[in-house]
Amino acid sequence: MEEILTRRKNMDKHLVIADPYPQTLERIFSQETWERLNRIAQVEGPDGDHLDSKRFDELLGQAVAVIGQSPMPKERLDKAPNLRVIFNVEGNFYQNIDYAECFRRNIRVLNCGAVYARPVAEMALGMALDLARGITWEHMRFREGTERYVLEGNHNAQMLTGASVGLIGFGLLGRSLRPLLTPFRCRVQVYDPWLPESVIREHDCIPASLDEVLSTNDFIFILAGVTNENKGFLGKREFDLIRPNANVMLMSRAAIVDFDEFTAQVAKGKFKASTDVFPTEPCAADHPIRNAEHVILSPHRAGGIPQAFHMIGEILVDDFELIMRNLAPVRMQPAQPEIVQRLASKPVK
Amino acid sequence: MEEILTRRKNMDKHLVIADPYPQTLERIFSQETWERLNRIAQVEGPDGDHLDSKRFDELLGQAVAVIGQSPMPKERLDKAPNLRVIFNVEGNFYQNIDYAECFRRNIRVLNCGAVYARPVAEMALGMALDLARGITWEHMRFREGTERYVLEGNHNAQMLTGASVGLIGFGLLGRSLRPLLTPFRCRVQVYDPWLPESVIREHDCIPASLDEVLSTNDFIFILAGVTNENKGFLGKREFDLIRPNANVMLMSRAAIVDFDEFTAQVAKGKFKASTDVFPTEPCAADHPIRNAEHVILSPHRAGGIPQAFHMIGEILVDDFELIMRNLAPVRMQPAQPEIVQRLASKPVK
Amino acid sequence: MEEILTRRKNMDKHLVIADPYPQTLERIFSQETWERLNRIAQVEGPDGDHLDSKRFDELLGQAVAVIGQSPMPKERLDKAPNLRVIFNVEGNFYQNIDYAECFRRNIRVLNCGAVYARPVAEMALGMALDLARGITWEHMRFREGTERYVLEGNHNAQMLTGASVGLIGFGLLGRSLRPLLTPFRCRVQVYDPWLPESVIREHDCIPASLDEVLSTNDFIFILAGVTNENKGFLGKREFDLIRPNANVMLMSRAAIVDFDEFTAQVAKGKFKASTDVFPTEPCAADHPIRNAEHVILSPHRAGGIPQAFHMIGEILVDDFELIMRNLAPVRMQPAQPEIVQRLASKPVK
Amino acid sequence: MEEILTRRKNMDKHLVIADPYPQTLERIFSQETWERLNRIAQVEGPDGDHLDSKRFDELLGQAVAVIGQSPMPKERLDKAPNLRVIFNVEGNFYQNIDYAECFRRNIRVLNCGAVYARPVAEMALGMALDLARGITWEHMRFREGTERYVLEGNHNAQMLTGASVGLIGFGLLGRSLRPLLTPFRCRVQVYDPWLPESVIREHDCIPASLDEVLSTNDFIFILAGVTNENKGFLGKREFDLIRPNANVMLMSRAAIVDFDEFTAQVAKGKFKASTDVFPTEPCAADHPIRNAEHVILSPHRAGGIPQAFHMIGEILVDDFELIMRNLAPVRMQPAQPEIVQRLASKPVK
Repeated sequence: MEEILTRRKNMDKHLVIADPYPQTLERIFSQETWERLNRIAQVEGPDGDHLDSKRFDELLGQAVAVIGQSPMPKERLDKAPNLRVIFNVEGNFYQNIDYAECFRRNIRVLNCGAVYARPVAEMALGMALDLARGITWEHMRFREGTERYVLEGNHNAQMLTGASVGLIGFGLLGRSLRPLLTPFRCRVQVYDPWLPESVIREHDCIPASLDEVLSTNDFIFILAGVTNENKGFLGKREFDLIRPNANVMLMSRAAIVDFDEFTAQVAKGKFKASTDVFPTEPCAADHPIRNAEHVILSPHRAGGIPQAFHMIGEILVDDFELIMRNLAPVRMQPAQPEIVQRLASKPVK
Repeated sequence: MEEILTRRKNMDKHLVIADPYPQTLERIFSQETWERLNRIAQVEGPDGDHLDSKRFDELLGQAVAVIGQSPMPKERLDKAPNLRVIFNVEGNFYQNIDYAECFRRNIRVLNCGAVYARPVAEMALGMALDLARGITWEHMRFREGTERYVLEGNHNAQMLTGASVGLIGFGLLGRSLRPLLTPFRCRVQVYDPWLPESVIREHDCIPASLDEVLSTNDFIFILAGVTNENKGFLGKREFDLIRPNANVMLMSRAAIVDFDEFTAQVAKGKFKASTDVFPTEPCAADHPIRNAEHVILSPHRAGGIPQAFHMIGEILVDDFELIMRNLAPVRMQPAQPEIVQRLASKPVK
Repeated sequence: MEEILTRRKNMDKHLVIADPYPQTLERIFSQETWERLNRIAQVEGPDGDHLDSKRFDELLGQAVAVIGQSPMPKERLDKAPNLRVIFNVEGNFYQNIDYAECFRRNIRVLNCGAVYARPVAEMALGMALDLARGITWEHMRFREGTERYVLEGNHNAQMLTGASVGLIGFGLLGRSLRPLLTPFRCRVQVYDPWLPESVIREHDCIPASLDEVLSTNDFIFILAGVTNENKGFLGKREFDLIRPNANVMLMSRAAIVDFDEFTAQVAKGKFKASTDVFPTEPCAADHPIRNAEHVILSPHRAGGIPQAFHMIGEILVDDFELIMRNLAPVRMQPAQPEIVQRLASKPVK
Repeated sequence: MEEILTRRKNMDKHLVIADPYPQTLERIFSQETWERLNRIAQVEGPDGDHLDSKRFDELLGQAVAVIGQSPMPKERLDKAPNLRVIFNVEGNFYQNIDYAECFRRNIRVLNCGAVYARPVAEMALGMALDLARGITWEHMRFREGTERYVLEGNHNAQMLTGASVGLIGFGLLGRSLRPLLTPFRCRVQVYDPWLPESVIREHDCIPASLDEVLSTNDFIFILAGVTNENKGFLGKREFDLIRPNANVMLMSRAAIVDFDEFTAQVAKGKFKASTDVFPTEPCAADHPIRNAEHVILSPHRAGGIPQAFHMIGEILVDDFELIMRNLAPVRMQPAQPEIVQRLASKPVK
């Protein structure tokens, strides 16, 4: 510990604790962002996967920032008089932090979920166009030599241009997707009970009830995060409202739908669907959705792409520089006193 | 013939000859556009697939418009003193019309190619996102039980946002695709030797040489039409310029590429590609592209969807109404004296 | 004449006749566009203001293009076997050309009106914001020492954001203005009897009757050109429909309004208005509009700015290059057989 | 006090203290927003201009919200155990609140400055177009009978389309203005030392130094707020960098410029300018800027328009409803621990 203090005095840099598991520093920092960080910080990182817990506690006395999802109960915060910010680099707020105490001490808790929003939005649009035009399915027929030319295979083909679109949830994902839809001049309905209608309208969308969104649209994007309150809120009653031939893209969390019912309905062709998420991952080898028709399956690949991980380092360094200059962070998502306790995400074990 | 004249005098409507084969009136007119047309026109259509040639010639004396791809040599135009417009309802200008004589007589020759531009643009974008993220290929792995979760299958995943994009050809297709790319904030280079650079810049694109477009972009859309001059202009030299891992979408005509070379390069994984067009269609059962990896195959389905066909009726009636009011057409593409003879499209036999 | 022919053989360049009065070559060509033109053309221009008429006729035998508004009756066209294009560099089609003969011979007649559209659109927007917020009038009060701070002078201040906007006429001007309004998220109604509703909708506007446009909007832009048919079509009945406190921008031609009635109504404060055009210009020294309140006056300055004049040279050279390569022009407006005879513009004497 | 408690138990509504002076409830609430507020709140408002201080203190015990700029030192917060939010309805954060104590107690302090951003942005754009085209000045000449037609008065006319634009400050104002510039396809440089470059780039702007912004742009918008640190930071050295004929719009606060120098330079025509703000308001009767040429004067009218005031009520009720549902506010600006102490705004006395 003394050693650290000595070094630090010499270096006149901010001490930052890095314990990013299951992330790695290599994955989130590019050469450029790592250099930017080290220009103003001395980063004490893990030796192997994890930072030793005792070492972590020793460093806390001097640390201004923590990078990672480590537990931060009050006892730990008590040891960290200089702490200004905790950077979650995985994606969600976990319940292993004493948020109330952080708010009391003006310690920012920030998460990096925003980096996944655009990759997921692009994937969602790609899946919508794929379902509407049968790209994947007709390619598979082509491989088998049974492809159908021009009109023959196009009877159900749909255009996105001018179509009616519904979004369930309008957080980061919805806001990343919305501008991608703009040139298609769709009517976009949004169901989001956490937002005033004015915000939905400001994004050129129409506020709507859940039932309206489900029953009146050709394209339905499911983008809502999971909370303690909305698990499985899309079940039989809701799926029954969806139009035949509608395209349903499940992008956020499997837990918000009754996945068995979802599987049953797409297997019967009640609607077309794609899903990037599954109740357990990997998806069980005998799960019936594996063989269901009318569905495109994606093994949780929508968000976690190399560019997104590198973006974590960028927004983290941007905000760290601001906070060290006594400015408010502007790129990562700050934990909000009102809602952080309601989020259902759990840290990895 | 007298009968027709008599009827027409009574009805006081414009006589329109309809010989749309291989199109059908049912496919191109919705109830609404058909009614609009019949409000001001008496349409004499085919009895079966084709309008009898003799009947066609008889009707010419009174006709103000022809709907279809029928041959219109000078002798026929000589019999048509009231003819004002010929509507091609298939997609391209054919060489069975004496265009010079039409220009001399102020007879508009219009084609409906514009209706396919947006469906093709949507398909092109869908394919680009699919190739960049591996949607189709990972779905196929999922069906086989070998899907790879999160990062494992994402090492080559690319975002369209911020990517470099090249367009080869900037006619109707390119202009329909360009706005779909706007929210992705790509740098868009365009190679089109038929256009002044100013027009390319006006569409927020960067004029570039063919070699630049091929060698410096992550996404390359091939959108050029075929002329007498550009057949096979994309061959080995050109494909060799393309970056590894680039995504190439062939959307317009197979004839502009050396298709064997194209097949060989994608089979080897020199780049990723999708194609909607083939040198002969149906594609030969033993064509090596059927089994090539790194390619998505689509049996000429990008343009010919039901909504596009219905759009033909809409733009046709819009322009017919204008021409009957002595106004210039604004929706279909007029044959241009300078270029109509250079187009390589052939009518169906 | 022989001299010209000899020179031309040597030079192997296209002969172009330039008789641009009242324009000047200096005003329309930048150094760069003049060089581009001279790279492929030998330009024979005026000696002083005008090109001698006899010289003009001599040059016609070899000329491929005419730059200017010179009379082109059939007798002249008969002397011009190589003529391919006539470039009007003033702004409108005049009735001193035998258009029918030009169409018969595939001679393009092109005008440069497009260059004024964007400058006029910017001015129109500037005037709309000025009227809505009282920029000019409150500045004048400030100069007199009677300015009113904050709310005191803002009781009638209007926002363009979210306002209702009506456009009368949707040609080049309307289409240049429309995108400037996009970020304000206005409802935009359009009255244009020359266009199908579909075209208006494609530009994200709502087709409407003249009376609707006048009676339901806070901002009304008058953008219609004059034809033989629409002179004075906005008179008392129409002005009476306009809402109190509406902002009316007269941008195109004074002849389409009953200017006395227009003056009377703005003088009484029936609505607020700006005008860039007057029945006679200069406006009569005792014209009552000079002292009318509620109006902003602009002495025909909306279109004719230096950048617009230089743009003429650019689009002319762009199209000249295309035509010389046997391609269709894409930047200037081609005379259309159906409508060129209906335009009411007269050449300058 | 008992009376209040009794009433409140009966009504089962949230108690809200309203002391909005110098605002008024009438000005900020429309009929609709007032009804929405009263549906869930019992509002105790002022009797006359001000709420009596003793009454205020009595109400604090039950109040969940305060509407107004009243002093809120620790002693008052101690009396307010149920307080959740303080709504500033004037525009800035004042230093009469114990912010640290509010953060400690999770009391949101919100301001309404956002409502002025769009009106100011519209005014800024209107002024830019006015200066570039001389709308106001040529109207004044017209009134005097010395107007100049077409080119004669247009030698210095500038287009915004394609121009180079610099923004000094990129907070709420800059972000409201940026989209209005999009259709003009300008290069937009931004100087804002409080923001990472990435944020500036995400808004399609180019990060630049102050000197670059001043020296390389045709249009310069001054949009920075005042802090303790940036008073008068635009002085002689900076104004000397501005291009001749540039258009400078001073929109935010007079205190950030050396106003005497600003006046001197515009009077000499070093550049053209407009200003909506003055070092003292009303501007001194003998202030030299009153007679300076090359300037448009506006008596602090850019933000305070009726629609903006009504918007205060709307965003306040939106956020109040969210907070009462235990959700985070999304429309008003929350005080940020890092920066609220640095802002230089003072409450009205």
